[in-house]
Amino acid sequence: MAARNIKITIAYDGTNYHGWQIQPDVPTVQQQISDAVERLIGSPTRITGSSRTDSGVHALCQVANLKVDTPVPTENFARALNDLPPEDIAVLDAQEVPDNFNSINSAKAKLYRYHICTAKVRPVLDIRTCWHYPGDFDDKNMNKAASLLVGKKDFLSFASAGDHRTDSVREIFSCTVFKDESWIYIDVKGDGFLYNMVRNIAGTLVEVGRRRWKSDYIKEILEARDRTVAGPLAPARGLCLMKIYY
Amino acid sequence: MAARNIKITIAYDGTNYHGWQIQPDVPTVQQQISDAVERLIGSPTRITGSSRTDSGVHALCQVANLKVDTPVPTENFARALNDLPPEDIAVLDAQEVPDNFNSINSAKAKLYRYHICTAKVRPVLDIRTCWHYPGDFDDKNMNKAASLLVGKKDFLSFASAGDHRTDSVREIFSCTVFKDESWIYIDVKGDGFLYNMVRNIAGTLVEVGRRRWKSDYIKEILEARDRTVAGPLAPARGLCLMKIYY
Repeated sequence: MAARNIKITIAYDGTNYHGWQIQPDVPTVQQQISDAVERLIGSPTRITGSSRTDSGVHALCQVANLKVDTPVPTENFARALNDLPPEDIAVLDAQEVPDNFNSINSAKAKLYRYHICTAKVRPVLDIRTCWHYPGDFDDKNMNKAASLLVGKKDFLSFASAGDHRTDSVREIFSCTVFKDESWIYIDVKGDGFLYNMVRNIAGTLVEVGRRRWKSDYIKEILEARDRTVAGPLAPARGLCLMKIYY
Repeated sequence: MAARNIKITIAYDGTNYHGWQIQPDVPTVQQQISDAVERLIGSPTRITGSSRTDSGVHALCQVANLKVDTPVPTENFARALNDLPPEDIAVLDAQEVPDNFNSINSAKAKLYRYHICTAKVRPVLDIRTCWHYPGDFDDKNMNKAASLLVGKKDFLSFASAGDHRTDSVREIFSCTVFKDESWIYIDVKGDGFLYNMVRNIAGTLVEVGRRRWKSDYIKEILEARDRTVAGPLAPARGLCLMKIYY
């Protein structure tokens, strides 16, 4: 039986990965971390990640835990792991946690941020981490629409096909839109998210921002419980997992 | 004879290019722009870039000019060109300028910024555009050292081997260091720069920041006129061409 439960916090640029979760024949973040841990402690170890971020999605604070039986001191764990993975993945922190801590089940909330660049010309130095959508946006109305998503609701209209979870009710604690020069940010904090839910929310709020839909239309979308009535799926590259709350 | 002189402003992420200047068998920014112009107007055209940025160096405002004889209206030029190059290059602006405008000879000053991330763990989303140098830096002393570079001086000690220009005197109009949380920025504005000069300045100021050298040592370096006495060459990825003044 493994003697210690280690919680690690991980940041990554998701551009070059097919998402978090290990899959055959493609590079994934979980695989990279898993390989790094194996090289460090000498035996294969199951890494449990809190969020299964999609292909191309980024993270500044993904959390994972792993049960190990190694003499490596916890304070050296992050540094040692950090020397191993490629430079687009970094281990920010490692801590020993109680045996019953599980990065998925213990999570109380997750915060995602969606990044939109509205400038006329694409931002070359940030193009990997945003949706470049040139145009004039009504960010105040977007924020009003966003506020209608807050609460414990059935978000089936915002779940992409492929989500086989039977319960589509989730609680959104906050959803806010703010603008900084030519950038628009959408922050969504919730107790959990359906497949592609944040990207579908972003695509929907963009329709409001571009004045194609009124903010109140959000209510109709929620009531419909039908994916086809919500906005388009926003590109993966604009999404970043910002924080997991325990 | 070409009827019009077009000035274009270009931004690029230099990561995937062997610098600005066309060279055989490797991707360069000038080649990409040149190919895009040829696809747009149907004939090969010489693109004169103001700065020959090195392999891996970025630009937010490179300036180039090209002499063309095309019916494409100037106001459509940037947009049309922008649809063509890869997404890590963007044409910000195109303007018709007098025939005697030359992006190299008409330039009065250039501003470069060098980016250093001093955080313990590498910044995965910005790793392509910075020098990750974890540690505690004395930014005030770096700024004091930077100020000693201002003026019309012989910068031979800051020129890497391979610079065959006979005159190593340049004028630095300003050189400032500022800190923002775990980031340090070095801004250098001058009338021109020797080969690798800004990166050699950055490497030297880092030695001061890490308290290995006193700020006054800059005077000795300048007087020596010897590359081996200055600090190490800072990595290309931290450097960005910010502006060219005409």
